Order: sequence, then structure tokens, then C-alpha cells
Amino acid sequence: MIYLDHHSATRPCSPAIERMMPYLTEHWGASFAPHRMGQELIAALDTRYQMIYDFVGADLKDTFVFTSSGAEAVNQVLWSAFLEMSRKEGKCHFIASMIEDAPTMQMLKRLEELGCYVKIAPVNSRGEIDVEKLAQLINPRTALISVTLAHGLTGVIQPIEEIARLAKEKNVLLHVDANYALGKMVFSFAGLGADYCTFSGDRIHALKSSGGLFAKKGAPLSPLILGGTEQGGYRGGAFDVPSFMALSAAIQQSALYLDAMSLETARLRDQFESELQRLIPEAKPLFQDTLRLPNTSAIVFPRVHQEALLYLLNRKGVFAALGGPYCQHLSRTLIASGIPELDSECALSFALSRMTTEVEVVRAAAIIAEAVQQLQLLSKDLF
Amino acid sequence: MIYLDHHSATRPCSPAIERMMPYLTEHWGASFAPHRMGQELIAALDTRYQMIYDFVGADLKDTFVFTSSGAEAVNQVLWSAFLEMSRKEGKCHFIASMIEDAPTMQMLKRLEELGCYVKIAPVNSRGEIDVEKLAQLINPRTALISVTLAHGLTGVIQPIEEIARLAKEKNVLLHVDANYALGKMVFSFAGLGADYCTFSGDRIHALKSSGGLFAKKGAPLSPLILGGTEQGGYRGGAFDVPSFMALSAAIQQSALYLDAMSLETARLRDQFESELQRLIPEAKPLFQDTLRLPNTSAIVFPRVHQEALLYLLNRKGVFAALGGPYCQHLSRTLIASGIPELDSECALSFALSRMTTEVEVVRAAAIIAEAVQQLQLLSKDLF
Repeated sequence: MIYLDHHSATRPCSPAIERMMPYLTEHWGASFAPHRMGQELIAALDTRYQMIYDFVGADLKDTFVFTSSGAEAVNQVLWSAFLEMSRKEGKCHFIASMIEDAPTMQMLKRLEELGCYVKIAPVNSRGEIDVEKLAQLINPRTALISVTLAHGLTGVIQPIEEIARLAKEKNVLLHVDANYALGKMVFSFAGLGADYCTFSGDRIHALKSSGGLFAKKGAPLSPLILGGTEQGGYRGGAFDVPSFMALSAAIQQSALYLDAMSLETARLRDQFESELQRLIPEAKPLFQDTLRLPNTSAIVFPRVHQEALLYLLNRKGVFAALGGPYCQHLSRTLIASGIPELDSECALSFALSRMTTEVEVVRAAAIIAEAVQQLQLLSKDLF
Repeated sequence: MIYLDHHSATRPCSPAIERMMPYLTEHWGASFAPHRMGQELIAALDTRYQMIYDFVGADLKDTFVFTSSGAEAVNQVLWSAFLEMSRKEGKCHFIASMIEDAPTMQMLKRLEELGCYVKIAPVNSRGEIDVEKLAQLINPRTALISVTLAHGLTGVIQPIEEIARLAKEKNVLLHVDANYALGKMVFSFAGLGADYCTFSGDRIHALKSSGGLFAKKGAPLSPLILGGTEQGGYRGGAFDVPSFMALSAAIQQSALYLDAMSLETARLRDQFESELQRLIPEAKPLFQDTLRLPNTSAIVFPRVHQEALLYLLNRKGVFAALGGPYCQHLSRTLIASGIPELDSECALSFALSRMTTEVEVVRAAAIIAEAVQQLQLLSKDLF
């Protein structure tokens, strides 16, 4: 089995599991408990927070909320902007791009139901958000712009600096979804110029029960889940110490491997693409001329329907991705970037991790080539 | 160390940790992934769901949403009622009791900010919600009544059947918070006559990252966290398979030990109380004549301030509880039940688990008696 679907989940790394275990078997108290089983956790948490702030390049004055997922973090950011900006200041206009993930799009739809209105910025042929067109969507009632730092399926890194300048100039809040970027590229929350940054733990070898949001000092922030005084009142419910500990260990590992990610993983990804092109001369890796994440590759395999290929690869033990339903589907994302519909429906996306090996990518390329040839033979008369 | 604060956290049981582990080390895929790493999880989840439905006595037509905490589950229930009943049908009136936990009270406060109004039902001298007075609060615009099945600090089991009859008669939704009751007493969701039931995993020896809600077929239900199609669209974000597996194992254990809980744990609790009364004749266990959870004991230690006692017991290695801030504080709960203020401020609450032993309760009683005597000596002139 060769797993090239690190878009959707990553293997929890051993240091994450190891750091978590004592908090399940020994130090399992509630961190709010007014006795030793609670108090002993406070000091242990402290240094771990520092690690997360450092890795994301956040200022100690910024607020970090540990959530149960990236989706929850995104929801909380948009909800905070709604409560503080829309309800209190009448700023009820939101902007996102065409290539945002489900949590952003579905939460914005909910805000529409609650009386807000939402505009969607297009992407250009390089797979990047069109900043000029985005600028035209801003109006005096715009509360927040929500964009991804890098797209999960295409890997395209977005022009956040330009968008941040724009947001600052127009006095609009900016949320950057760093779900796919964290641990794959060097960035700092301070450097981005954004007001919020969110991520998910299950994309960086931590547990599924982890995610987080950073909010700049002064940016509106309200709890999404209410109940108690944990995390400064910004998130109710018992603080999930074991999962937080696992996240801190996974982040420490990500920091150690960040160079390897941008050198070795990028090299393997490039090797994967050229190997595929050698075996299938018609194969077209996409967005090679755009800045991309080092681990991601979207490739068109002409005359092969993506679903058939995904299915056949699954049987052959190679796991790839097609994205989610509706706008989150790879074909919709590609069509949005001006790639012909026929090509868009023949594409698959692959995401490596730092655990992916050269043997795996070479073997995967051979299996994919075999599968593509099988399917092309079958569908010869259809295309 | 003797841990008698099972109100705030319980030790994850070994079967829970064991059942979770393979889903961290081997089967760590995303359950929504369209390949083997995702699909293999679906069948594994299926039988585990059945176990949870059976234990809670839910009908297969009811909906179960696995959440990251009991707090999240409570938030989602109230939010669903708001979206569907208040916004669509104009039913913007909510009722809770004086002794509800923070998630309920804080979420209701948020609904007030969004235009709803909330009435609070009092409790009687038996520590039970006053059903007659609650009935008087219902009006034609009442959307939902939210009450706890048993109170965490006093252990008092609430008259849910009567409240359910009332709710049905008046066509009002009923949410029952079973956080403290699940695994401690026999009940079934079907038998309660409620529309919703919520609980938290960290009170029944599962992980902190687990909780859940049951909603009767037809009861309004909306996601609180949006993003994707997991759990039928009722909760966005990656489904936390490892924590769900741990919950299913913890629930299986709870089912096995349910008899032991109502017999052996109740016996130990009673022994704890009589031992304390033997050593401190003035000590007054509360609500002994009311139906209580088998594991909980609230006790007044005259002439000893509860905070001083809690602090001293902590130093001596016995961990008890005082509740949360504001209304969640033990003294406020007791005052609400008509217990004199002076007594209310001299009370502590203790909660055993099925893991608590006879040696522990006898030893704890001796340590508590010693601490009480020390403090009474110190404060002789104050009272």
C-alpha cells in the first residue's frame, strides 16, 4: 500500500503518541480541577504552548485557541467576526475565494442565512486567487476576507501578502486557512499580516482531535463552544490535554523536518512527476510554474476518468485524492483555474508526507502508469 | 493520593486505550476518504455505534452525533432549537433549571443576546427541580426545556418523567443532560421521553475528546460545527475515529459495571458517609432521603470553610470538588435548595468511580476527619 492522500489524513507520529500517553494513564485530571491532578497540568502545558507559538511565528500577545479540528477553528473565526463585526457594527459582508474548503464555505452559507452576504473571488489560470478581482469585491461593509494559504489539491501557494496589504488598506479582517501549508512551507503568522490563522492537527501527524486558531491581539474573538472558563473562556468543555500534548510533539517534529520537507519531499514529488511523464508521455502535471507546496501534485491523465482511475488505484494499493463534493472537488477547482473540463475530469491529486520514500514514489508511478494504460485501453472508443 | 473528584474527570480505562491504539498506529485514515484506508473504517464503526445506541437505550431511528465534548453536544442541541424553532417558528423562549451546568447556562445567555428570552426554574429543598414552578414558566412560545438528569455535585436525580410529561403536553422540546447520570444509573433515552440527551466521554472513563448527543427522530437538528459531509452533515471536521473507538469501549465497560455501580459503589459511598459521621458527629451528608446517584456525596462539615478544607485535603492527597464559578458553585447549588448559607459554605462534594476501593474510602474518611479537626481548631474563635 502506498499512501499518497496526505491531503485527508496523516499518520500520527510516534513522538505525538508517546507524549500523549502519560496524560491518558497518569495525569488524566481535568486541567480546571482545583487540586494537584489539575494543577500539575498547568506547568506542563506552558512550555508546550510556547512551542506552538514559536512554530507558527505568533506573538505572545496573540491568542491561541486549541480546538477539536481545523473545521471548528475556521467556524470559530467566522462566527467571531459575525458576532462582533456584523451584529455590533453592521459589517455583514464577507469575501472568500472559489477554492476554499468546506468549513469556510458552509459557515459562510450559514452567515448568509443569518442575514450576511458573501462574495466569491475567482482564481486565475495559475491556480491563484485573483487579487485584483478580489479587491473589487471589497466595500465599506466588508467584515472579513477568508482565504487559504495554499490549496490542498493543487498545492498552489496563494498571494497572501498582497491580500493582506489590501485587507489592511481597506480595514478588513483577514483569515488565512493554513491547514495544508503548516509544516509544508516556511511562514509566520506575524509575517502574513493576517488577523487569524487556522490549522488542523490531523494534517501534521498529530491526532484527529486537534486543531487551532491564532487571533491577533485585538481581533474579535468569541467562543463557538460555550461552557466554563477553560482557555480563557474562548472554548468551553474540558481542555483536551492528551491531544494538545500530541499536537505539541507533532509540531516539534514538523519544525525539525521543515527543511527536509522543502528539499527532500519536493525532490521526491518532482521525481514522481517526471517518472510519470516518462511512463505516460501525455500526463500533465499542473501548476508546475506556480509556487506550490513541496508535497502536492495534481496531474492530468488524458482519456482516463478520474473516478475510474482512483478506484483502480485503490484496488492496486495506491491511495490518491479527488477532493470533496461540490466546489471542493478537484475537477471544479481545476475548471475554476481555466483548465478544460475534459482535462479537469481526468486529473488526480497526490500528496506526499515526510514519511514518503523514494521507493514508494517510483513504485507508485509504475502502478499508476499501468492503471492508466489499462483504462485508456478500455475507454479507447469513448474519447 | 485518593481521587474523589470523578465529577470533573475520570481515568481512561484500559479497554478504551487499547481499542483506540490501532486507529492511531495502523488505521489512521480519514473515514471520508474514498479508498481502502477510509472504507475499512466504516464497517468497524458500525458495530460500535450499535453498542452506544443499546447502552443509552436509543432507537435506531434516533440520530447520534459524536462530538468533541459534552459541552459541544449541549451547545449543538440548544443551537439547533434556536435555528429551527426560534428563527423559523418564532418560538424564542427557553427554560432551564437553577442547577444546570455552564454549557447550558452560557449557551442560553448567548441565545438571549440573539433575541431569545430565558426563564429559570427553581429547585426544592430535596435538591430537585420544582416541576410545578417549572410548569408555570411554560408559555406558547416556549421552544425547549433543558434540565440535567442528575446533578453532578449533589447527585440528586431529577424528576425527568414528570418534566417529560409536561413537555409533551405543552408541545415543548426537552433536552436532558445525562453527563453525570450515564453509567451511574439505569435509564433509557426512549424511556425518558426526552427529545435530546447529551453526555461527555470524560466522565465515563473514555477520552476528553469525546461526547455525544442523541436526538429523537424528527427533533430539530443542525450542525454546530460546519464543514463536510461526515456524520450525515451533522458535524463538520474529520470524524475522530480513535476517540470514538475509545468511547465505545468505555461504554461497553460501563454496561458491564452498571450493576456494580448501583450496588458496590453505592455501598462504598454509604460507608464513606457513615464513617465520616462516626469520626465527625456533626458532619451532615446531604440529600440522603432523595434519590441520588450511587457515587456522589455532598457533605456539610460545620465550622470549616469549604475552600480551606479543599486546600488542606489537596495537600493531604484527597481530591474533592466545589464546582465551578457562579451558579455552578456547590454553595450556590445548596443555597438554591434552601440549605442555610453558613452550611452551604462548609460543604464539599465527593464522587467515587467503579475503580474506587473500600480501603480508599476508609482512608479518605480518616484524612478528612483529621483535616476537619485541624481547621475547626484554627477557626474556633471565628464561628
